[in-house]
Amino acid sequence: MLKKFAKAAKPTKEEISERMEEEQAKLAVNQIRIRQAKVPVMVIFEGWGAAGKGSVLGKVIKDMDPRFFDVATLHSRPTEEERMHPFLWRYMVEIPEEGQFKFLDTYWMEEVTSQLVAGTLAKSDYHKRIDSINMAERQLVDNGYLVMKFFFHISQEEQRARLDALSADENTSWRVNEDDYLENEQYDSCLEIYDRYLRDTNRSSAPWYIIDAKSRRWATLQVLEFLNMGIDVAIHNRGVAAPLRQNVFPLNKVTPLADIPLDKTIEYDDYHDQLKELRARLGALHNIVYRKRIPVVIAYEGWDAAGKGGNIKRITSALDPRGYEVHPIASPEPHEKARHYLWRFWHRLPKAGHIAIFDRTWYGRVMVERLEGFCSENDWRRAFNEINEFENELVEAGVVLIKFWVQIDSETQLARFTDRQNTPEKQWKITDEDWRNREKWDLYEQAINEMISRTSTTFAPWHVLESNDKRYARIKALEIVVDAIEEACKRA
Amino acid sequence: MLKKFAKAAKPTKEEISERMEEEQAKLAVNQIRIRQAKVPVMVIFEGWGAAGKGSVLGKVIKDMDPRFFDVATLHSRPTEEERMHPFLWRYMVEIPEEGQFKFLDTYWMEEVTSQLVAGTLAKSDYHKRIDSINMAERQLVDNGYLVMKFFFHISQEEQRARLDALSADENTSWRVNEDDYLENEQYDSCLEIYDRYLRDTNRSSAPWYIIDAKSRRWATLQVLEFLNMGIDVAIHNRGVAAPLRQNVFPLNKVTPLADIPLDKTIEYDDYHDQLKELRARLGALHNIVYRKRIPVVIAYEGWDAAGKGGNIKRITSALDPRGYEVHPIASPEPHEKARHYLWRFWHRLPKAGHIAIFDRTWYGRVMVERLEGFCSENDWRRAFNEINEFENELVEAGVVLIKFWVQIDSETQLARFTDRQNTPEKQWKITDEDWRNREKWDLYEQAINEMISRTSTTFAPWHVLESNDKRYARIKALEIVVDAIEEACKRA
Repeated sequence: MLKKFAKAAKPTKEEISERMEEEQAKLAVNQIRIRQAKVPVMVIFEGWGAAGKGSVLGKVIKDMDPRFFDVATLHSRPTEEERMHPFLWRYMVEIPEEGQFKFLDTYWMEEVTSQLVAGTLAKSDYHKRIDSINMAERQLVDNGYLVMKFFFHISQEEQRARLDALSADENTSWRVNEDDYLENEQYDSCLEIYDRYLRDTNRSSAPWYIIDAKSRRWATLQVLEFLNMGIDVAIHNRGVAAPLRQNVFPLNKVTPLADIPLDKTIEYDDYHDQLKELRARLGALHNIVYRKRIPVVIAYEGWDAAGKGGNIKRITSALDPRGYEVHPIASPEPHEKARHYLWRFWHRLPKAGHIAIFDRTWYGRVMVERLEGFCSENDWRRAFNEINEFENELVEAGVVLIKFWVQIDSETQLARFTDRQNTPEKQWKITDEDWRNREKWDLYEQAINEMISRTSTTFAPWHVLESNDKRYARIKALEIVVDAIEEACKRA
Repeated sequence: MLKKFAKAAKPTKEEISERMEEEQAKLAVNQIRIRQAKVPVMVIFEGWGAAGKGSVLGKVIKDMDPRFFDVATLHSRPTEEERMHPFLWRYMVEIPEEGQFKFLDTYWMEEVTSQLVAGTLAKSDYHKRIDSINMAERQLVDNGYLVMKFFFHISQEEQRARLDALSADENTSWRVNEDDYLENEQYDSCLEIYDRYLRDTNRSSAPWYIIDAKSRRWATLQVLEFLNMGIDVAIHNRGVAAPLRQNVFPLNKVTPLADIPLDKTIEYDDYHDQLKELRARLGALHNIVYRKRIPVVIAYEGWDAAGKGGNIKRITSALDPRGYEVHPIASPEPHEKARHYLWRFWHRLPKAGHIAIFDRTWYGRVMVERLEGFCSENDWRRAFNEINEFENELVEAGVVLIKFWVQIDSETQLARFTDRQNTPEKQWKITDEDWRNREKWDLYEQAINEMISRTSTTFAPWHVLESNDKRYARIKALEIVVDAIEEACKRA
């Protein structure tokens, strides 16, 4: 689409001034409307080197209220730290919260295309990146984000002239690097690459807008006009339901919770022997995990009082405290609630070589948020696929992902609740909410069965821990963790 | 996506029966909701030969009210007549009206993929088809259509067994043809082709649903569940605004109407000489147009009393009545209004070798519909691009497309209105509405200027006919028509 790009006729200077004033006034109002409508807005600037992204960005935000926007400058080459995370990670952590604008001076396009230009990205990896990006943009838009994508376009001659002018001035020469000149020399092949990328990511929900960037003022006006137009549509469309997509991931057949026997137990002595042995193995593995830079995510979900905490403790007691983190997941804080529901988990992903343990997880979307009406039906129905996509991204990036459902029966929960109530040092563990949730056992069980059957993918299956006997569950968890990590260490 | 398709586990017979009953009841309600919400629904069945599309279709509609749906069976090989139209034509004429279901037993996929299988579609033509299809599906969804796409999937062995069984029975052997066996023999390469097509057309707004079609009842249930789910979302989303896309077509620079001098005239004798000569040339060209199978579309727009009718008459009087049609376009009839606004024009496209003259056109969307509020602001803003896309499809398919704006000034209109009012045999030509529209001259002029500047593409530019002197305008129109057709005849 870039190759065929037909410039609109540039208006006269007077017309630009007139329209500019109008659009700036509109944006001043729109920033308030966005805040009131609670729409999160991402404005992505991509384009040729020296096309003037920065200075146009400066003009666009000039009259905006600084409380309403944020600017991030990303680089095409991820840092060491960033490379220790999945591809999407450093981008997803940047997404704005509702009511806020985030201006992104280059985003995921530049990393991909610069690798294509350098010839360091295989064709199959390119397709993977495109799939990841389209998936992420779709998820953002489906979850209420406005994603505006601008490509700043200038000709080879114009770029050359600008690079020379910047280089000639000692105050600006730092802004030009070798890559810029390389891009200019290989303009035609870069054009092919950019054109293809724009085509491959030009989706109805987040289409590309190509900016004729020869004149800065005219470029600014184009951005403002498209932006205001996009805002009008986004505000009009608040609360829209996204089409539900078919699960495309291979699923395991699973057993409904009610059919899982819970009479499994372990003898006390056995327990201690096995615990000791498994801990020793896990401790040793942790070193290999670190050395081989394997990221590990262990996700715990389960009934209240099922014994998640104690189970997690048996894992962590084997680990080097410098190499793991436990994330207790409670109700989202305001700044978390205001973003895509997976954001707080993207944010907490471990870097390669580290282990992250989640005490409750992203599955809250299809349990408590579903049952308490904290999200719409369309939201939680869509979430099964979104979560599978999220987990697929992790696994494809080499994350060892282990998901536990800690299972007990209703009678066992009642006994443990009663015990907590009656034991002073355990009373903090039991709240009115626990009792209220208990009344909804059947509804939860139905939702959990659906969750497990829809998200037990072959690459990230659920493991049910039968936890009427907590010790049995602990040993089973340790075995699964040890096996999975051992396997990954062998492959790595 | 087909290659990686992960079948969901097939439920037990009892569960299928239970869920089937539930979904059929839901569909019974949903057909009424669709009618009330005025959503047009397209249900597209594609898939392997003998995958059971027909029998599943039969089961899906079994309990539907026959007034609410319609079935069309399309063929992968267009007829002679169909090949004389642009690729999309035979599909676009089939779209349903609002509140109605249209079940389409194969649609545009099959024509494209069968040509790929046969090796008769060049790679560049494949990309063109994909672009056309994605464009059309997007336009339909943006204009309120629900487009549900199902691909019926069976294994090579299953297909082979079914073909053999069908062939063996004299009552069903007619349902199997050579192509089916060919598809079975080349199963793997067909799989590649289908997989690619599904990927290339899997857009958020109209995603694919792959149906595990081994069991008919299970396949029926899958279709029903996806269909009901799609309907829920579509009804929830009535009135959604679609994101506006950037114009990607090359535009001509145009002059605002006010700056076009209208003092051009022609002497009476000159007029007659030229008229005679041009008519003779056009008459001769009409034979070549017919022989070379060139489709021609001449579109007239202009002010009331600008002289469109007389202008058209001067064209048609040169033509063989068997080879042209004039389409006077008034307010849409109910069955037209109930469909995508371009439908009535798709419907009236000339076949190759014929000339269609439109007295008023699809541009009503951005003039009267815009100004009278017959469509939303999002609708008419989106329409500029949609119309450019529509015209691009025609031109790419070889249509000679000529667009006239018949221009007069306000005083001339007043004089002609007054003359009509005062001349008994002309009084039928003037209505109260004409006078009311006249009061909105300035608003119309603004809209028309925007229309001309946004849709004067290099491949389908507007020609302004200065018609204060109607004779001048007629000669100019004839010259343009003769030149354009002559040019096309040379190229053909």
